[in-house]
Amino acid sequence: MNRTIIFDTLNNDGGEIKAVLGANEFLKQNPNYKIILVGNEKTIQEHLLKDVVKQVEIVHQEQLVHKSSSLRDVIRNESSMLTAFDLLKEDKADAILSSGDSGSFVSLAALKIPRLAGVSRPAFMPIIPTVTNNNILLLDAGANIDIKSEYLLEWANVAVEYAKVLQSNNKIRVGILNIGVEEYKGTETLKNSYALFNENSSENFEFIGFVEPNDVINNKVDIVLSDGFNGNIFLKTMESTFLGIGHLLKQMIHSSCISKIGGFLLRKKLKKFKNRFDYRNIGGAYVIGLKKIVVKAHGGSDERAFLGALNQVKNAIESSIIDKINIEGDYE
Amino acid sequence: MNRTIIFDTLNNDGGEIKAVLGANEFLKQNPNYKIILVGNEKTIQEHLLKDVVKQVEIVHQEQLVHKSSSLRDVIRNESSMLTAFDLLKEDKADAILSSGDSGSFVSLAALKIPRLAGVSRPAFMPIIPTVTNNNILLLDAGANIDIKSEYLLEWANVAVEYAKVLQSNNKIRVGILNIGVEEYKGTETLKNSYALFNENSSENFEFIGFVEPNDVINNKVDIVLSDGFNGNIFLKTMESTFLGIGHLLKQMIHSSCISKIGGFLLRKKLKKFKNRFDYRNIGGAYVIGLKKIVVKAHGGSDERAFLGALNQVKNAIESSIIDKINIEGDYE
Repeated sequence: MNRTIIFDTLNNDGGEIKAVLGANEFLKQNPNYKIILVGNEKTIQEHLLKDVVKQVEIVHQEQLVHKSSSLRDVIRNESSMLTAFDLLKEDKADAILSSGDSGSFVSLAALKIPRLAGVSRPAFMPIIPTVTNNNILLLDAGANIDIKSEYLLEWANVAVEYAKVLQSNNKIRVGILNIGVEEYKGTETLKNSYALFNENSSENFEFIGFVEPNDVINNKVDIVLSDGFNGNIFLKTMESTFLGIGHLLKQMIHSSCISKIGGFLLRKKLKKFKNRFDYRNIGGAYVIGLKKIVVKAHGGSDERAFLGALNQVKNAIESSIIDKINIEGDYE
Repeated sequence: MNRTIIFDTLNNDGGEIKAVLGANEFLKQNPNYKIILVGNEKTIQEHLLKDVVKQVEIVHQEQLVHKSSSLRDVIRNESSMLTAFDLLKEDKADAILSSGDSGSFVSLAALKIPRLAGVSRPAFMPIIPTVTNNNILLLDAGANIDIKSEYLLEWANVAVEYAKVLQSNNKIRVGILNIGVEEYKGTETLKNSYALFNENSSENFEFIGFVEPNDVINNKVDIVLSDGFNGNIFLKTMESTFLGIGHLLKQMIHSSCISKIGGFLLRKKLKKFKNRFDYRNIGGAYVIGLKKIVVKAHGGSDERAFLGALNQVKNAIESSIIDKINIEGDYE
């Protein structure tokens, strides 16, 4: 078990210092871990705790990845994210964390890291909150706009191992996102997927068929499968609706004296409620299907969010998740 | 101007009586209107107000439309919805309202009613709430899983007229739902649509490019265009998130004495807030692109919702919306 994490500290939201602070805290709590920090050496040196210096290697690269439509641009131009992936490719570690541009992150992951046997394409897999206390896994959330039915089945088999780390359910429930639960609904690819899942029943999970957004939000599945376009729309719609409602609630509470008192009496509960849907408490998104642990933290991450994401990486390392999924690969 | 509305009173949620009560109220308020009520004659007779009997024609049909994957089934089996569309086809009225199964409704509309010139396919167009006080139009929300770029442009030109009835904005803003705002994002169809809209700039509306769910929810557009699959996922995710949060808030308020008091002090504001997103206050969905006014009320509609939907039909009739859109057709 390689307890080294490559951590790209740069992102568009300027969270570099917060990244270092998150690393400090993680290393203090986990003296058996090492982090390779990629970013501006000066900034990192300035904020790194003396106590953890021994656990850190710094690789200087102050260029932020350039958001682009072209993978070629991402590879041609120096960036901390590119450097981080190159280090991963050289097997300096088994895990990577970054809060930089998602598109570039997924592209570089797909390019630099070998795929697991039996997985055609990597997928972007965020953890999403539901109205129950469980979080569930959504994939794909943006890496693959066009999919084949087989991808969904391949992804399900990989995602199940991640779901087991996340929760201790006996049987992981898998559903496919659709515009109706009837098996005749949706695109040809989805209908074929439905048939494919029924033909390939798995001991690893229970296939519960098509699910609608309502079923996902109410936690009737542990894993929801989708093409990257719809998964992305689903994810962003859920987030935006939640933020929009939160904003309106805040306005509402501040609109009169009486409602301010009402809001004051509810403040603890409201805070708990807000925390329940706060990405900092939920975790980063995995890129799955690759022979490394690949985690993307939120672009707006603060110290706490980065600490959470590092712990998420740690949990994946300690559950030997890649080895578990890669068994098939060993017999190739 | 034909002030007759064909109203299919049957639906899966058993709202038949509520449909008649809604019709009663509408006819009292609008003595110059006539409604052809399709449904169980006995039930209708029992609940119809004496005052409005003269404005009503009853067409007996007690079979509810059978939800099915096959249009053939929908046409073969008698149903109040089929009867209602046949009456519309015979030009007994220029407008139809139903709260029955959406899939059957859209299929029958497409089959029974001629399309407007310049529109390749009808689209399902609900009115959706935003976090501002404006409601906006979403299309397509489920009628067309596969689309061509031209459809979006055709739909925009039709939807603009409906948007003008809904609000008095000087310039209607049109956006295309995508997973990013950059013009290189999304499917080939979406990229082609972007180019097509830029080549065909319209005096009728302002094309603001690609929009993400966040932009829609924050009312940065008046009309949002999508294929029927994504539009449906977007709509249902927004609704389910809202309902899920509402449910959690309710739980939260009832969880302790203090929070109950807090909730009590906020009750008026919370009710207003809930009303803002209540479909009964927002209206039914249009099926657009056809030479009749076609409105689908929510399956769970009560008297107030039906009254609202009938008023929505009335507004469309009185703004001569079909004539306005159909100008092109007159020169065919």
